[in-house]
Amino acid sequence: MAEGLDKVVVSSRIRLARNVNGMPFPKKLSNDERVYSVLLKGIKDAIGDTFEYEYYEMRRMNEVDRMALLEKHLISPDLVRNIENGSVIISRDRTLSIMVNEEDHVRAQCMLEGMELRRAYEKISDIDDRLAENLDIAFDDKLGYLTSCPSNLGTGMRASVMMFLPALTMTNSMNSVINTAQKLGLTARGIYGEGSNADGYMYQISNEISLGISEEDILRRVETFALKVADNEMKIRDVILKEQGAGLIDKITRAYGILTNAYMMTSRECMGNISLVKLGVSYGIIKSTDMKTLNRLTESIGSAEIIKRSGRSLSALERDIERAKTVRNAILRIDQ
Amino acid sequence: MAEGLDKVVVSSRIRLARNVNGMPFPKKLSNDERVYSVLLKGIKDAIGDTFEYEYYEMRRMNEVDRMALLEKHLISPDLVRNIENGSVIISRDRTLSIMVNEEDHVRAQCMLEGMELRRAYEKISDIDDRLAENLDIAFDDKLGYLTSCPSNLGTGMRASVMMFLPALTMTNSMNSVINTAQKLGLTARGIYGEGSNADGYMYQISNEISLGISEEDILRRVETFALKVADNEMKIRDVILKEQGAGLIDKITRAYGILTNAYMMTSRECMGNISLVKLGVSYGIIKSTDMKTLNRLTESIGSAEIIKRSGRSLSALERDIERAKTVRNAILRIDQ
Repeated sequence: MAEGLDKVVVSSRIRLARNVNGMPFPKKLSNDERVYSVLLKGIKDAIGDTFEYEYYEMRRMNEVDRMALLEKHLISPDLVRNIENGSVIISRDRTLSIMVNEEDHVRAQCMLEGMELRRAYEKISDIDDRLAENLDIAFDDKLGYLTSCPSNLGTGMRASVMMFLPALTMTNSMNSVINTAQKLGLTARGIYGEGSNADGYMYQISNEISLGISEEDILRRVETFALKVADNEMKIRDVILKEQGAGLIDKITRAYGILTNAYMMTSRECMGNISLVKLGVSYGIIKSTDMKTLNRLTESIGSAEIIKRSGRSLSALERDIERAKTVRNAILRIDQ
Repeated sequence: MAEGLDKVVVSSRIRLARNVNGMPFPKKLSNDERVYSVLLKGIKDAIGDTFEYEYYEMRRMNEVDRMALLEKHLISPDLVRNIENGSVIISRDRTLSIMVNEEDHVRAQCMLEGMELRRAYEKISDIDDRLAENLDIAFDDKLGYLTSCPSNLGTGMRASVMMFLPALTMTNSMNSVINTAQKLGLTARGIYGEGSNADGYMYQISNEISLGISEEDILRRVETFALKVADNEMKIRDVILKEQGAGLIDKITRAYGILTNAYMMTSRECMGNISLVKLGVSYGIIKSTDMKTLNRLTESIGSAEIIKRSGRSLSALERDIERAKTVRNAILRIDQ
């Protein structure tokens, strides 16, 4: 099973929700600078010099810079809404991020490429221990970690695996995956334009609840289910290639031709073409690029990221032209 | 004006119609083997060893081989219809061809790449002189060369220029070109799926009549008009690039991406994409291929030619796959 897993599993992520005793939840914090600075100091002290990081305050950023972090999944929409007192600490290597005053006081996450739930858990647990030493973390013997939303009570932990599931999507098998996930206390949800022609075929599988279940249990359940889904996906990929044959190969090679040649492209079309080329890489039809390059590329084609890189405001047309250039250069390995 | 002429003028062709005294016209010849062999001997004697050639008898060829010659414009539909007594002599370099028993006993033509009407005329006149020495060519002092169809009486000569006119087509200016041609005693007619998405944008400009006009006059009229049309085409190409800008560049680069990557392609789609890429070459947008390669490619993508090269019978799907491969290899200069 480990064979070919990189053709299905994009990344693994562990996120912890923590709050500090005696401080109102972020939504009620509003502009309390004193509380905010105590919180921030605690977090920064906790990190110390364990890793190099960048620190961004929402209120000191412009719209484009905030959206660029959002497109890269380094921050959440909830943090962007907390412009007054939201901020984020992001490690230089981008694997660790700590959101301050998102839904909870602290949302610490570790995201790694591939099926790496356990390694991500180890890394984030280390941060968690340090946070506990520096802040008075709210914990109840019965309810576990106290969180703003009851669904995060207990471990306050969400383990998720990002998966690329084109074959299950094309064969309309995702509803069954979603239903099975629910029965196991898990959630499978699509991201990026589900069910459209510009489909990214990307799904996130994660635990639904975090109360009354151990951290080890969460990891095991999510991992086991993700591996089973990956196994099914690979089997069905073989089936659809046999069934659709030349038609599917043609779709894939044309998508590659468009990605490496088009002069302008919307992010929707781009996503659809990248997905087809990823499928082509997994079949061995496309040999001149790889899964990692393509997965990273999907994080670089958002409008905000395109504008940010160009360093000036761009019309929609100019954005589409810049995006196409970014994509061509990334796939053909041309330095910009 | 000579500048850029190769971006518009594909080829020049002179065709002479000749008949032999005392022989019924081909349509009435039917299976008269004696007459046929006298005719053939005269033609072969006329050629002698002036050029190396291949000789094909329609009745000894299979359907695919006949269609392959037709697709390459080396023979005409009328010759294919004369299976019993039609044949053709084609020079090794493919510039000269002599059809025997097409509409007339002899149809000799010279076709050269580029604007080369006069050079083609010299080459075919040489053949004409030799034919007159070896056959009793039917000629009337008033009517000139006697031909099966009255429209060819007189010089029996048709001078034509094949032109690539995308800008005039896209701007709906071709009707005006066609009307002007008529007023000058010329014909401009589109070939390959006119007005469709899969347009080849190819037009042939030739003299309408050949009676009451000298050969020199025919050459001059066709050449002058073709040069004028070419000039207009180049001017309008600049205009549409300015007007359509990114949209046109995108169409061109995508067409290139499809041609160099698609796994299968119909000849219609292929023709449309080749035309766009030719336009791209003329703009300097596409630099990795050239007009000559693309013009020759349009002669190699017909179904019969594809089947002939593969050496076996092919389904429609297999043909489309083989065609796409031929196109990729030709443009990317990969030896098959």
